[in-house]
Amino acid sequence: MQRSPLAPKRFPTLADVSGVRLAGVAAGVKRRGKLDLFLAELARGTAVAAVLTQSRTASAPVDWCRSLRPTGRGRAIIVNAGNANAFTGRVGAEHVRRMAEATVARLGCRTRDVWVASTGVIGEPLPADRITAAVPKLVNSLAPGNWGSAARAIMTTDTFPKGASAVTRIGAKNVTISGIAKGSGMIAPDMATMLAFVFTDAKISAPVLNNLLRRATDRSFNCITVDSDTSTSDTLLLAATGCAGNRPPGAANDAQLRPFADALQGVLIDLATQIVRDGEGASKFITIDVSGARSRRAARRVGLAIANSPLVKTAIAGEDANWGRIVMAVGKSGEQADRDSLRIAIGGVDIAMRGQRVGDYDESLVTEHLRGTEIHIGVDLAVGRGRARVWTCDLTHDYIRINAEYRS
Amino acid sequence: MQRSPLAPKRFPTLADVSGVRLAGVAAGVKRRGKLDLFLAELARGTAVAAVLTQSRTASAPVDWCRSLRPTGRGRAIIVNAGNANAFTGRVGAEHVRRMAEATVARLGCRTRDVWVASTGVIGEPLPADRITAAVPKLVNSLAPGNWGSAARAIMTTDTFPKGASAVTRIGAKNVTISGIAKGSGMIAPDMATMLAFVFTDAKISAPVLNNLLRRATDRSFNCITVDSDTSTSDTLLLAATGCAGNRPPGAANDAQLRPFADALQGVLIDLATQIVRDGEGASKFITIDVSGARSRRAARRVGLAIANSPLVKTAIAGEDANWGRIVMAVGKSGEQADRDSLRIAIGGVDIAMRGQRVGDYDESLVTEHLRGTEIHIGVDLAVGRGRARVWTCDLTHDYIRINAEYRS
Repeated sequence: MQRSPLAPKRFPTLADVSGVRLAGVAAGVKRRGKLDLFLAELARGTAVAAVLTQSRTASAPVDWCRSLRPTGRGRAIIVNAGNANAFTGRVGAEHVRRMAEATVARLGCRTRDVWVASTGVIGEPLPADRITAAVPKLVNSLAPGNWGSAARAIMTTDTFPKGASAVTRIGAKNVTISGIAKGSGMIAPDMATMLAFVFTDAKISAPVLNNLLRRATDRSFNCITVDSDTSTSDTLLLAATGCAGNRPPGAANDAQLRPFADALQGVLIDLATQIVRDGEGASKFITIDVSGARSRRAARRVGLAIANSPLVKTAIAGEDANWGRIVMAVGKSGEQADRDSLRIAIGGVDIAMRGQRVGDYDESLVTEHLRGTEIHIGVDLAVGRGRARVWTCDLTHDYIRINAEYRS
Repeated sequence: MQRSPLAPKRFPTLADVSGVRLAGVAAGVKRRGKLDLFLAELARGTAVAAVLTQSRTASAPVDWCRSLRPTGRGRAIIVNAGNANAFTGRVGAEHVRRMAEATVARLGCRTRDVWVASTGVIGEPLPADRITAAVPKLVNSLAPGNWGSAARAIMTTDTFPKGASAVTRIGAKNVTISGIAKGSGMIAPDMATMLAFVFTDAKISAPVLNNLLRRATDRSFNCITVDSDTSTSDTLLLAATGCAGNRPPGAANDAQLRPFADALQGVLIDLATQIVRDGEGASKFITIDVSGARSRRAARRVGLAIANSPLVKTAIAGEDANWGRIVMAVGKSGEQADRDSLRIAIGGVDIAMRGQRVGDYDESLVTEHLRGTEIHIGVDLAVGRGRARVWTCDLTHDYIRINAEYRS
């Protein structure tokens, strides 16, 4: 698969996170000796927060993570790519347990301290033997700086590995946040999932960590779409080892946590938008700002209606200033909007104001903007103060090619 | 534009409806002298029922029809293609009124007896002068059997005209139902709308007619999708002239109305599925039966989640038995389903039962079915008795070509 034209130049340098060791090896789930097994070992006392898919047909590993969530802690995260272990019946749950137990046997923690995720084809039994057989090699490879092979080991149809990092402070202490993600569509051809694993050495209790994660997810991963299809396996884990030695904050709205919350959101947005930049067939990266909505939630819903509209996405792929399709998408979102005050801009050029095209509209300026790869759409609904930013990519022949011609 | 490979062989013969005269002429809204203006003249006393788009950015003609709906009657329907008169501000409403008034001047009814619809590009002012100038010619062309030119005059990017007809009984009286429709996507490139106009000589009061129309729409037009994009202008009108002279039924659930209600639903399903068969780029016609849902509404929602999934649609375009994508779509619908009892079949071949792939699954049988053009998907959710049938088409390179390359 050719590298996405929207890919960053290179994999970024990620800061090591004290209390975290990483490994990525090839277990033979993917073909041709590609990396497909990832392990993160976490220091004793690590708090873990999780955001999991809302799908009603969630995978066996998602069920497992959901059952661990109340514990709020973890000593390891093990992930395979190449098979999603979704829709695999009772044997699927058993395979999850075997992955956890194989990890426990080498790391000496408890089974319920091991978080598990899987990504790949849906409905086929997991080759669990190959995975458990590779665990010793995996554990031997653990090292603090293995971000690159970790990010590669969770890829499916991704065309580049994804990582992001930030250094911030809690009180007087420096803390680090580093994470990796995979995804190339909410679901990739034949495959499932968006996965992200983020690590910090901050000392933060699990309830506060969950609260922070939920808020930051709401403004990052929950604001992206490639094709509107939600995976059976979406999993986002945030592990806080506590090795930074900061005084643990009592609540998520603790003023001391502000820089950390901002940095966390920055890292998640960075990872989430990298997924969009690797969207199947993407040739344009699209940022949509919605303002004037009744609420932030309403603004996001309108933004996603625009971002998910195949007609908006194909117009942008065709570099066609077909703004009527944005009007249509606002209308179908179901959210309140004042049609006769609606304002639409593309690339900063006002196209429509007060419910109709502006008098001196110059389409050539918009067409010029659409020839680039970084597209901006602005919409003001004129009914309130809610705003949201949403990211997506265009819909191209390559999307069809990848998804209609992949298996056959 | 090439005729859809799923098009019927020819335009069907539609029965004349007593009390209805039709005309289709070229007013110069579309280019190259194509038919673009349609008029139906309705006998005195005609009851009219309407179903209109739910869009929050509805067009000016939709606003007009909404204001007429409480009157429950009409003497004419005038429709132009080539310009949707949507997002056109105050001047848009004025143009609707001018279309109605030009009709009144020749037919001698009242302005509020004239229903108006428009379909085409969004955001550009309607060339109202050309339309009003063509009304005399339009009125002179009125005749009972002009179904073909009527159906052509409302087309935009449709590749074939759409019509359907049925003869049924109310009590001892024969009654006729004939209708036309247009649409090639919930919204066509650059253009907007699904329109349908259905006529009957039955004598039925407006409240009963509205009730019948709503029920039949719920099982026909509200069960189709091409690309999940809802138009600003969707309009479905049902006009009952009363010329058949049947005894008017007192309520929609009157036993005498059963055959009429069935025939009406049949005509609407026929028109609706013709729109799907003309779906942009369509190469396969897909019927999805969902059973075992908590309710009919839940079943339809699951069916539409499958029908709207770009990954399901591209898999079918690629003749790829990638049933994991159906699992995914069921999961993302948000409706209750029993993952571990879910049953999935394609082309009548059971693929998954009790939450996993069947033991002796033979993919070649499904692949064989997918090579055809009439595809069937069956899903049982195992949580209730609700069922629904939904229709869609596949997502192909031609969809991208039509929508990304149309204007540019």
